[in-house]
Amino acid sequence: MTVDEKAKDAAGLDLPTYDDVARAHERIKPYIHETPVQTCTTMDQLSGAELFFKCENFQKAGAFKVRGASNAVFGLSDKQAEKGVATHSSGNHALSLSYAGGRRGIPVHVVMPHSAPQAKKDAVRGYGGEITECEPSTSSREAVFATVQERTGADFVHPYNDPRIIAGQGTCAKEMLSQIDGLDAVIAPIGGGGMVSGTCLTLAALAPHIEIYAAEPEAADDAYRSFKSGTLIQDDAPQTIADGLKVPMKEYTWHFVRNYVTDILTASEQEIVDAMRLTWQRMKIVMEPSCAVPLATILKNKDVFAGKRVGVIVTGGNVDLDKLPWMTA
Amino acid sequence: MTVDEKAKDAAGLDLPTYDDVARAHERIKPYIHETPVQTCTTMDQLSGAELFFKCENFQKAGAFKVRGASNAVFGLSDKQAEKGVATHSSGNHALSLSYAGGRRGIPVHVVMPHSAPQAKKDAVRGYGGEITECEPSTSSREAVFATVQERTGADFVHPYNDPRIIAGQGTCAKEMLSQIDGLDAVIAPIGGGGMVSGTCLTLAALAPHIEIYAAEPEAADDAYRSFKSGTLIQDDAPQTIADGLKVPMKEYTWHFVRNYVTDILTASEQEIVDAMRLTWQRMKIVMEPSCAVPLATILKNKDVFAGKRVGVIVTGGNVDLDKLPWMTA
Repeated sequence: MTVDEKAKDAAGLDLPTYDDVARAHERIKPYIHETPVQTCTTMDQLSGAELFFKCENFQKAGAFKVRGASNAVFGLSDKQAEKGVATHSSGNHALSLSYAGGRRGIPVHVVMPHSAPQAKKDAVRGYGGEITECEPSTSSREAVFATVQERTGADFVHPYNDPRIIAGQGTCAKEMLSQIDGLDAVIAPIGGGGMVSGTCLTLAALAPHIEIYAAEPEAADDAYRSFKSGTLIQDDAPQTIADGLKVPMKEYTWHFVRNYVTDILTASEQEIVDAMRLTWQRMKIVMEPSCAVPLATILKNKDVFAGKRVGVIVTGGNVDLDKLPWMTA
Repeated sequence: MTVDEKAKDAAGLDLPTYDDVARAHERIKPYIHETPVQTCTTMDQLSGAELFFKCENFQKAGAFKVRGASNAVFGLSDKQAEKGVATHSSGNHALSLSYAGGRRGIPVHVVMPHSAPQAKKDAVRGYGGEITECEPSTSSREAVFATVQERTGADFVHPYNDPRIIAGQGTCAKEMLSQIDGLDAVIAPIGGGGMVSGTCLTLAALAPHIEIYAAEPEAADDAYRSFKSGTLIQDDAPQTIADGLKVPMKEYTWHFVRNYVTDILTASEQEIVDAMRLTWQRMKIVMEPSCAVPLATILKNKDVFAGKRVGVIVTGGNVDLDKLPWMTA
């Protein structure tokens, strides 16, 4: 069954198609990097697989989320754009939307937990975004957001549960297919599921034989429990060091995860920190705790990946360098 | 005057030529990465120049020194190779020689200060190198080394004062010329001067119009004082956070620095730490303090680089993640 057929099946959802991904790619190309793919002998030896790290930590604004955000911002009509855009975000989406809004020259309103890393707040303001703070729970951020949106009339760009965002994130897997031959599997971290959904959208259309794995912290495993039970579970404010992955899936991303993901794997907090440190030490790249979850799950599930050519999406590099997890451990 | 003519001028030194660089490149290609060049809008805005970062921190064994070390190891006759190689090093050369020796399957003996970062010692041993520790001074390491060499009969591969090493390091600038159009200047950190000398060798032969800058910590500025006075000055054991740059130039590297370098610029310890942190934060790459010295000098000498296309050699990424300089400041 193709993605387009699935779209017809899903009553009530205006699902994006692969054509939306292709259009998004044309639209956002001037504003994003085609990020490099890096390999590392040590990582291959440790995993028993061939790992290809897609370095979205080198992306504009420091994370893959600039893909979806740019697609939303540059797809607005001039009239819609006047009032700007607004969102609630654990950080990288806010930063990316601020970057994209700044490139188009429109207002960007951001609701963000007061507990978000200072580096992310500074970067949002540096790109010209205006921050309203909330409590670090899903319910609080949604409530505060409603008042901001009412006041400004800005267009709501959800961090992930939005067809424009999912289509934009799908451009990452599209690039990977042109950069890496013979992929057997792709793995990405899952929080709300935007990147995983975009990956599903692209791979289902262009390379449906490639397995798709989602990696999640054990401490915030609502996607795992949803996937295993077949019912969408949405936890409010779980605690994990992978702060980009605390948010729950919603209907759009649940659609893609339920229908296209091969499996969801989880890792403990310590396994995530160990994988993060290993990457910094051996690959010399700065990645967020969230991005270390895929490597952590690969290293603890070697049988799943043995001998396979695996694309690993490194989703972002926005960390607070004053609060590195192994310094406080 | 060409490099070859210079070679005839320099009585007593068996100077490498550009042909040695070209041969080195063919010899070492199977064992090294052609490292990527990265750009960063923020860095361009801060500097007023166009900066092209040549990421030797992504090099095999984590540093450019694998170029020279591989050239030395794979250039040995089988008979010479039997007794292996030996060196004294502040870290990256030891690691690189261990890597290259491991690839060829020959013994590698390393004399290293006991104060060297634990991560570097572990990595040397991980590649199969055997470490003998010394005091952290040039005089101590040379004395201990003599006893090791006498015991083993290994071929001495100096970290930088060796034509094979200089020719090998010259392959980095050779790659840069093929990767970046219209360079106006290249800047690299200077300790013993191996990378700067290799850069001089290549650029003097292929692109003599390109300016060559060397960047040095104020706290270990013997190359700066040598350059300005016209006389080789060799300090013993200066203290700087840029631990790869504590060693003094010797006759081979002094030859190249004296004849081909445009200028030597210096930066304070705090400027080095600030530039290092800025790079981690904005470019998402792990670099050693030594590699931050060029960026630190660019940011404090903006008039020198304004409007120029500048190649910045990021020499290595081997840091002790438990001892980051801004955590102890």
